[in-house]
Amino acid sequence: MNQQLKNRQILLKTRPVGLPTDQDFEFKEIPVAEAQDGQVVVRTLYLSVDPYMRGRMSDAKSYIPPFNLNEAIAGGIVGEVVESKSDLLKAGDKIIGMLGWQLYNTVDAKTVRKIDDSIAPVSAYLSVLGLTGLTAYFGLLDIGQPKEGETVVVSGAAGSVGMFVGQIAKIKGTRVVGIAGTDEKCDYLKNELGFDAAINYKTTKNLDEALKAACPNGVDVYFDNVGGSITDSVMNLLNDYARIPLCGSISAYNSTDGDMGPRIFTKLIKTRSLIKGFVLSDYASRQEEGLQELGKWLSDGKLKYEETIVDGFDNVIDAFLQLFQGTNLGKMLVKVSDADK
Amino acid sequence: MNQQLKNRQILLKTRPVGLPTDQDFEFKEIPVAEAQDGQVVVRTLYLSVDPYMRGRMSDAKSYIPPFNLNEAIAGGIVGEVVESKSDLLKAGDKIIGMLGWQLYNTVDAKTVRKIDDSIAPVSAYLSVLGLTGLTAYFGLLDIGQPKEGETVVVSGAAGSVGMFVGQIAKIKGTRVVGIAGTDEKCDYLKNELGFDAAINYKTTKNLDEALKAACPNGVDVYFDNVGGSITDSVMNLLNDYARIPLCGSISAYNSTDGDMGPRIFTKLIKTRSLIKGFVLSDYASRQEEGLQELGKWLSDGKLKYEETIVDGFDNVIDAFLQLFQGTNLGKMLVKVSDADK
Repeated sequence: MNQQLKNRQILLKTRPVGLPTDQDFEFKEIPVAEAQDGQVVVRTLYLSVDPYMRGRMSDAKSYIPPFNLNEAIAGGIVGEVVESKSDLLKAGDKIIGMLGWQLYNTVDAKTVRKIDDSIAPVSAYLSVLGLTGLTAYFGLLDIGQPKEGETVVVSGAAGSVGMFVGQIAKIKGTRVVGIAGTDEKCDYLKNELGFDAAINYKTTKNLDEALKAACPNGVDVYFDNVGGSITDSVMNLLNDYARIPLCGSISAYNSTDGDMGPRIFTKLIKTRSLIKGFVLSDYASRQEEGLQELGKWLSDGKLKYEETIVDGFDNVIDAFLQLFQGTNLGKMLVKVSDADK
Repeated sequence: MNQQLKNRQILLKTRPVGLPTDQDFEFKEIPVAEAQDGQVVVRTLYLSVDPYMRGRMSDAKSYIPPFNLNEAIAGGIVGEVVESKSDLLKAGDKIIGMLGWQLYNTVDAKTVRKIDDSIAPVSAYLSVLGLTGLTAYFGLLDIGQPKEGETVVVSGAAGSVGMFVGQIAKIKGTRVVGIAGTDEKCDYLKNELGFDAAINYKTTKNLDEALKAACPNGVDVYFDNVGGSITDSVMNLLNDYARIPLCGSISAYNSTDGDMGPRIFTKLIKTRSLIKGFVLSDYASRQEEGLQELGKWLSDGKLKYEETIVDGFDNVIDAFLQLFQGTNLGKMLVKVSDADK
């Protein structure tokens, strides 16, 4: 069967300096590997592109090893089993896993997880019921610890993590202020997701003043996805004992000339604030708890989600690069193929 | 009796811009206030000068209100009761309290705490058995949470808080590296206090390299008293899940042109590190626990302390300003008068 399938993959060809370009990647035709005992062949349905992947393209030390050059880039993929030599999965099953950017992956069945497409569309497992929903859940609740009546600010608020942060913060009874980069996104946050205020940092004349107006009682929790000068402005409004879950710093990921700004130490002492970087895998042991809560809020209609879906494997690199231009509303996904059923 | 005593006080005359000067303060002769029922007259024996007081001289919002202009500056004072109209204290008792920078203070007996000069010299209550010992204790153990075998770096290591941080970290079985500003201080840290390494940041050619050599296994806890470029260097060596109790940022206290440096957000995410500002009063409810532990280590000979004592009330301002030149080894105190007995 595999002989009839045409497989392609995307390799990391060179380590990008600054913003990656098409030249850093290579598309390559390869055969579909034969499934051995215990393995399955998975056809990619949706592929997730995420800002953190930029970090893995460099070889600097980080919380996950860098991608190897001349190997397929790996990321979150939802796929359909098209051939199985395992008792764990059968053809037609939908799965999620960390797989290669390929049309087909041949992998041990136990390295992927079967998903239930009757609860939500399969793409949801790459957002609200996946890494980004869980990241929002644990970062906000475990580090941010929002209390009723407090003010929560989230940057990158219309992004895949930010929109869940804001909604969960509303569920917890806080005032929620989002920072995003287009009026369309800000309208969405206020009108669709129930944010109390949203600031377009690209068009506001004075971000400090706009934040002050949106946070008349200061800032108790700042969920940071972006870093840089936006974060500098929020720091001026910290209340005593503020908590700052550091989830991302997208403003710095392509920086080549260092990332300079006001030092924050004196502010943190004065307010006794807490800043903590985190990565979802720190909460691996509590994944079930998170998925259950998110699933419940989703089915109760308390949690909405949005996807920006780019069509076609040929457009994966373009979708990835769009992340750094902020064109996506919610999770950025690439639809690679349709499910058989 | 009070009529025979000559009283003097030090007022804040103007709010300093940058480094304070003599002109910002005024010495004034005043009468000793009569003790009313419930009050005592206290003669100042030792007076504590501390970097945090610089903050109170400005009128920026902080964790304690600013000093009022044209009022006596208030700080930690050890004194002797010379007259009592309270059942709580009698003449000759030694006390500690937050009192005015005056030769004599007349205050309600219940606002000061009696100290036992048979356990340690009274000046110890302004250092190891006082705010600085407790600050080291809670900041290091509660936020830093050092574990045996880890590496603890402390800046301002020969200062009043830093020297206790390092010694407590040694008691907890860690590798301890101190950063200080003279060779004499570094020798003291290594030879007298048992630090594993000490770096003179003023004479080392390359602080980054020196830190790397002193911390071959990276940095797990960084107790920060200074901020600025020293802290920037330590940030490069953070291990995963590092903890950074922020106690002080003396490098910035007199800064008038902003405090700029490398942004640290990406590093904190990669290492999932935690930074938390704190102030001793956050731990008010646990003060007894801290004093008991410190007292036990002191009597067991596990904790040494050092004082830099400037003589005479006329030299209070000079002693305060020396803090910012780093001339003091251990707690900087001013001896104002001798005890009667």
